[in-house]
Amino acid sequence: MSNQAPSSVMNPVFILVEPQMGENIGAACRVMGNFALPELRIVNPRDGWPNPKAETMATDSPVLKQAQVFATLEEATADCQTLYATTAQPRNMVKPVHTARGAMSEIRGHIEGGQRVGVLFGAEKSGLPNTAITISNAIITLPVDRKFSSLNLSMAVGVLAHEWRAGDPAPGDFKPLEDRASVQELQGLYTHLEEELDRAGFFYPPEKTPLMMQNLINIFARGGLTQQEVRTFRGVIKTLAIGRGKARIERE
Amino acid sequence: MSNQAPSSVMNPVFILVEPQMGENIGAACRVMGNFALPELRIVNPRDGWPNPKAETMATDSPVLKQAQVFATLEEATADCQTLYATTAQPRNMVKPVHTARGAMSEIRGHIEGGQRVGVLFGAEKSGLPNTAITISNAIITLPVDRKFSSLNLSMAVGVLAHEWRAGDPAPGDFKPLEDRASVQELQGLYTHLEEELDRAGFFYPPEKTPLMMQNLINIFARGGLTQQEVRTFRGVIKTLAIGRGKARIERE
Repeated sequence: MSNQAPSSVMNPVFILVEPQMGENIGAACRVMGNFALPELRIVNPRDGWPNPKAETMATDSPVLKQAQVFATLEEATADCQTLYATTAQPRNMVKPVHTARGAMSEIRGHIEGGQRVGVLFGAEKSGLPNTAITISNAIITLPVDRKFSSLNLSMAVGVLAHEWRAGDPAPGDFKPLEDRASVQELQGLYTHLEEELDRAGFFYPPEKTPLMMQNLINIFARGGLTQQEVRTFRGVIKTLAIGRGKARIERE
Repeated sequence: MSNQAPSSVMNPVFILVEPQMGENIGAACRVMGNFALPELRIVNPRDGWPNPKAETMATDSPVLKQAQVFATLEEATADCQTLYATTAQPRNMVKPVHTARGAMSEIRGHIEGGQRVGVLFGAEKSGLPNTAITISNAIITLPVDRKFSSLNLSMAVGVLAHEWRAGDPAPGDFKPLEDRASVQELQGLYTHLEEELDRAGFFYPPEKTPLMMQNLINIFARGGLTQQEVRTFRGVIKTLAIGRGKARIERE
């Protein structure tokens, strides 16, 4: 798959991660159609696909017909260079937190720079899994009342879809990265790092591995990486992991 | 009824004019509760009031319990000084036409000036009657796609409720990192990384060292690091640099 968005891609991709109710998927399709956001991806919908309730609520939205279903989050995000996670509560993640307006302004800059941008929405009950937030570059939080914070999934989609379409077409002074690495390339880096750290006994006690990896991934995901930087950093890991051992052996 | 808003009234009143489906009324109550907009008025709902479908969709929103039902638009708007009509299509009315953002900004000024402001939403099929638009001071139009313009009623309520709350001048857009590492701490990390990479023979040819380090530092500097992340990453470097060598020695 090409790593550069084709010039026709002018909008962010909205990605529903393990949504439960077909009604909400359909309502999301309808409001995305209202605000001319064509591309919806659905990760592992609870009730399968196609879904008659989604079709009813979509009221013939063209978005429903074009929606793509993926088995995993990794597949659904593989060609994206930048991800935003929508969450109601902060999760003690070290990430920039944006309003809808701020995020959409930033996304506009990324897209104009040729990136493919995904916006992740979690399941109705549980929201996004921590793994999805970890790989995201930034968080979008809507200013909900703490005492009554449970926003309907399609409503969250609608609010961000409107914010996208309503956004100022004039971009801010944001210069996006060129040749930005895709999520798939980043996952390769993270896996490489985890394997080498694991071999070197970094993860202790072992049950802390996911949390420690989450903290490390946050460092990279926050700023984003170019494809060249991914290659460079994999070189760093490789060199550090074998270098000392090699040096010792050579000296012996 | 007093013509002046009591000082406690800090939000616009949302008024649904002859809504048809209880589900939409309930979903409107839910999203108004999410964005802390307490006051909903309902003019002559088709299926009467209370409405069990509205209760289900409201998910215990406090807005539902406080909602007031009126027989006519005149009664529902009697105490308001300013009215905004939400419409998808222009109706050849000589009225100011606002975006959601522009309208909410203007409404904030009216409310700070002590006014009671109503925002009118029409029925699902037909929208607002011309009489309602006529008595309104201005129109709010959302930027829907002309080819697929029929926005769900509760979605229109949700978009404007979010816009109202998001326009709150208090919250900043961007939540900065806490415990952000100082440049000195970052320099310590960079020096540590450079030393270990140098020992492992990473910099080749040696005159390229400054440029290669610059490229690596960019990765970290872009997103910024917390103090904890600096400590974590120094642990990564240390572990990778000695881990493999140590493991080899132990295995020997």
